Amino acid sequence: MANAFYAQSGGVTAVINASACGLLETARKHKDKIQNVLVGRNGIVGALTEDLYNTNLLTDAEIAALRYTPGGAFGSCRYKLKGLEENKVQYERLLDVFKVHDIQYFFYNGGGDSQDTANKVAQMAAKEGYPLTCIGIPKTIDNDLPVTDNCPGFGSVAKYVAVSIREAGLDIASMAETSTKVFVMEVMGRHAGWIAAAAGLASEYTGEPPHIILFPEIPLNQATFLAEVDRCVKTYGYCTVVVSEGVKDEAGKFVADAGLKDAFGHTQLGGVAPVIAQLIKSNLGYKYHWAVCDYLQRSARHIASKVDVEQAYELGKAAVEFALAGKNAVMPTIVRESNNPYRWKIGETTLASVANIEQKMPRHYISENGFGITSAGRDYLQPLIMGEDYPPYKNGLPAYITLRLELITKKLGTFDI
Amino acid sequence: MANAFYAQSGGVTAVINASACGLLETARKHKDKIQNVLVGRNGIVGALTEDLYNTNLLTDAEIAALRYTPGGAFGSCRYKLKGLEENKVQYERLLDVFKVHDIQYFFYNGGGDSQDTANKVAQMAAKEGYPLTCIGIPKTIDNDLPVTDNCPGFGSVAKYVAVSIREAGLDIASMAETSTKVFVMEVMGRHAGWIAAAAGLASEYTGEPPHIILFPEIPLNQATFLAEVDRCVKTYGYCTVVVSEGVKDEAGKFVADAGLKDAFGHTQLGGVAPVIAQLIKSNLGYKYHWAVCDYLQRSARHIASKVDVEQAYELGKAAVEFALAGKNAVMPTIVRESNNPYRWKIGETTLASVANIEQKMPRHYISENGFGITSAGRDYLQPLIMGEDYPPYKNGLPAYITLRLELITKKLGTFDI
Repeated sequence: MANAFYAQSGGVTAVINASACGLLETARKHKDKIQNVLVGRNGIVGALTEDLYNTNLLTDAEIAALRYTPGGAFGSCRYKLKGLEENKVQYERLLDVFKVHDIQYFFYNGGGDSQDTANKVAQMAAKEGYPLTCIGIPKTIDNDLPVTDNCPGFGSVAKYVAVSIREAGLDIASMAETSTKVFVMEVMGRHAGWIAAAAGLASEYTGEPPHIILFPEIPLNQATFLAEVDRCVKTYGYCTVVVSEGVKDEAGKFVADAGLKDAFGHTQLGGVAPVIAQLIKSNLGYKYHWAVCDYLQRSARHIASKVDVEQAYELGKAAVEFALAGKNAVMPTIVRESNNPYRWKIGETTLASVANIEQKMPRHYISENGFGITSAGRDYLQPLIMGEDYPPYKNGLPAYITLRLELITKKLGTFDI
Repeated sequence: MANAFYAQSGGVTAVINASACGLLETARKHKDKIQNVLVGRNGIVGALTEDLYNTNLLTDAEIAALRYTPGGAFGSCRYKLKGLEENKVQYERLLDVFKVHDIQYFFYNGGGDSQDTANKVAQMAAKEGYPLTCIGIPKTIDNDLPVTDNCPGFGSVAKYVAVSIREAGLDIASMAETSTKVFVMEVMGRHAGWIAAAAGLASEYTGEPPHIILFPEIPLNQATFLAEVDRCVKTYGYCTVVVSEGVKDEAGKFVADAGLKDAFGHTQLGGVAPVIAQLIKSNLGYKYHWAVCDYLQRSARHIASKVDVEQAYELGKAAVEFALAGKNAVMPTIVRESNNPYRWKIGETTLASVANIEQKMPRHYISENGFGITSAGRDYLQPLIMGEDYPPYKNGLPAYITLRLELITKKLGTFDI
């Protein structure tokens, strides 16, 4: 009998709470081993400051509602622990908090940085001889963790951007003859084009939106790009462009940083869509509109992928099962067994194998001209957006839950993070 | 026995095709009176150029699919006919096309301009002694037509923006302690704040997003606004702002035009969200993110309001019924009978009563401080976003239809528009 600690880390997603749901529901089935799951307020920061939510006070219905609630229900953080040698005091503090609250299970739900942190905590506990089971749970819309076939959170963003460009595409197509001819939609992905690529799923037949995708992996050649925009307008009557926020020019500079200045002459960060739209207008003269999806894409639980929700839930569940099976310093993964029909199962990898390693998008997922996805890319992406998993609605809006959370009584002194 | 003409006009919506569906399905039930519905390619332009789609070639299944397909399936246009005296030749051409194709019913689906056009066509036909029944069908996301309680297309945008700010709000709330503290979401509404107001539906309890709404009706006072942003961050830990593209400064100038310049020094039109975000950053120093919904909001059929879809359909149906009942130069309207439970019925008004008249949002729908909606506003808006009406999905994406359209053989010479 001991307690567990769970925390959400980094940018939140439409389904990270589904992982929390899987973890908490599974832990509740094993009260003989896990007495209580204490959750860090705002992620690992809560463990350092001893701000721990008592999930035993939550009803089963509240926990079930996490499955369909986006965002991070317990708060998340952008806070990276430094290396063991650089900041040993933080790791010692974590162990102090874990010891005083009888925490013997550490579940950390996040991306590559978080898996690295979980791994370091495991090493520290082993070295100190404290019996701590450390399990990572993958999460990132960026889909950039290695070993696992894909990352929870990505599939729902993928579905959102593909649905959105299909819908906006129908709008532009309707109006193009007398109005807007070019539409630019900006999506996330500072370092890799996974999300931009997913928008390509909407283009099932030649000529369907999106007509052009701009990837961070492919330096933007203005002349080639403008020629392709012009060709699309002349061929289809309009052109839709999906641009990753991370697209760079041929000198390796972010295009987003290249154009706009505010009224005071400061460079306006973010917003590559208006830069691309203006580039088209200045050179080709076409009337344009542009959209920036930003956080809407990663919080769009209303159009989440059913596959994504299921995988997020199952990974949370598997984390508890791994822990109870005596595994340590590992992370459950998604293993793809087949594409058609899509079959997947839970796999396993060591935290060391995933910590701080970025999974790049393979070049052969991007078409030769650099503006679309290949059939290999489509084969990989397609299963991840399958199925709908609608939340319940009340008053015409999704009835997402806000948990009634209570912190447990602190037992230690304050700690300055 | 005669033919009918139908055209879609102006900016398209998530449900304008639902009106087309109601009209075409109802017309098919009256083949004894309406032999064929000819549809203008790209709206009224198709009538002038004699580019008319033959809907008798469409299957019932294709027409049924219009109910859940966004955009304008036959093409729409931004093309306003001039006054009768200024450009009589256009009206004469319309009558020539109608005569030669035995069109005795004219259905025009659009906003205030379009109702004005329909009214002028009716006047012209009467003057020439040509038996033409002219019926308008309301449509506009701007919700600015008079007489009718609301306009099809608006309810679905309203639902989209309220859902989106609720979801993004959960995201910001999760991360605010260590990351983004302010989120700005830009919505449409150049002249009236109906759409921005609808986002306010997401804030059911004090402190829920959106915290601040910036309306075109309320001049932006920077000091008051910044103080309110700061208060929200200090009270709730974060602040979400919904800004209408049409918000103006105290000198009456569009805020969107006030800030950004492109690399060449040109003013960048569109994009008030980055201007507002930068204003906050410069004055309060808070980390921000911003989104611009643009066309995504008016094409988001995947999250359409069920009430909106039903009303759009019923108005298309009513248009045919009005015509067959011998009415002329009228438009079916939505009449609100009660709020709780919400009950509505089809009403009727003359085209003259709606032509070119803008329905402003009442000031008492906006809260006294100008940053939110009142309970009166909520009572009006709430019923319009009720219910979900999900499209069918295939391959993880909405299975929207692209009609196989064929133009009928032209009988007249070309006409230069």
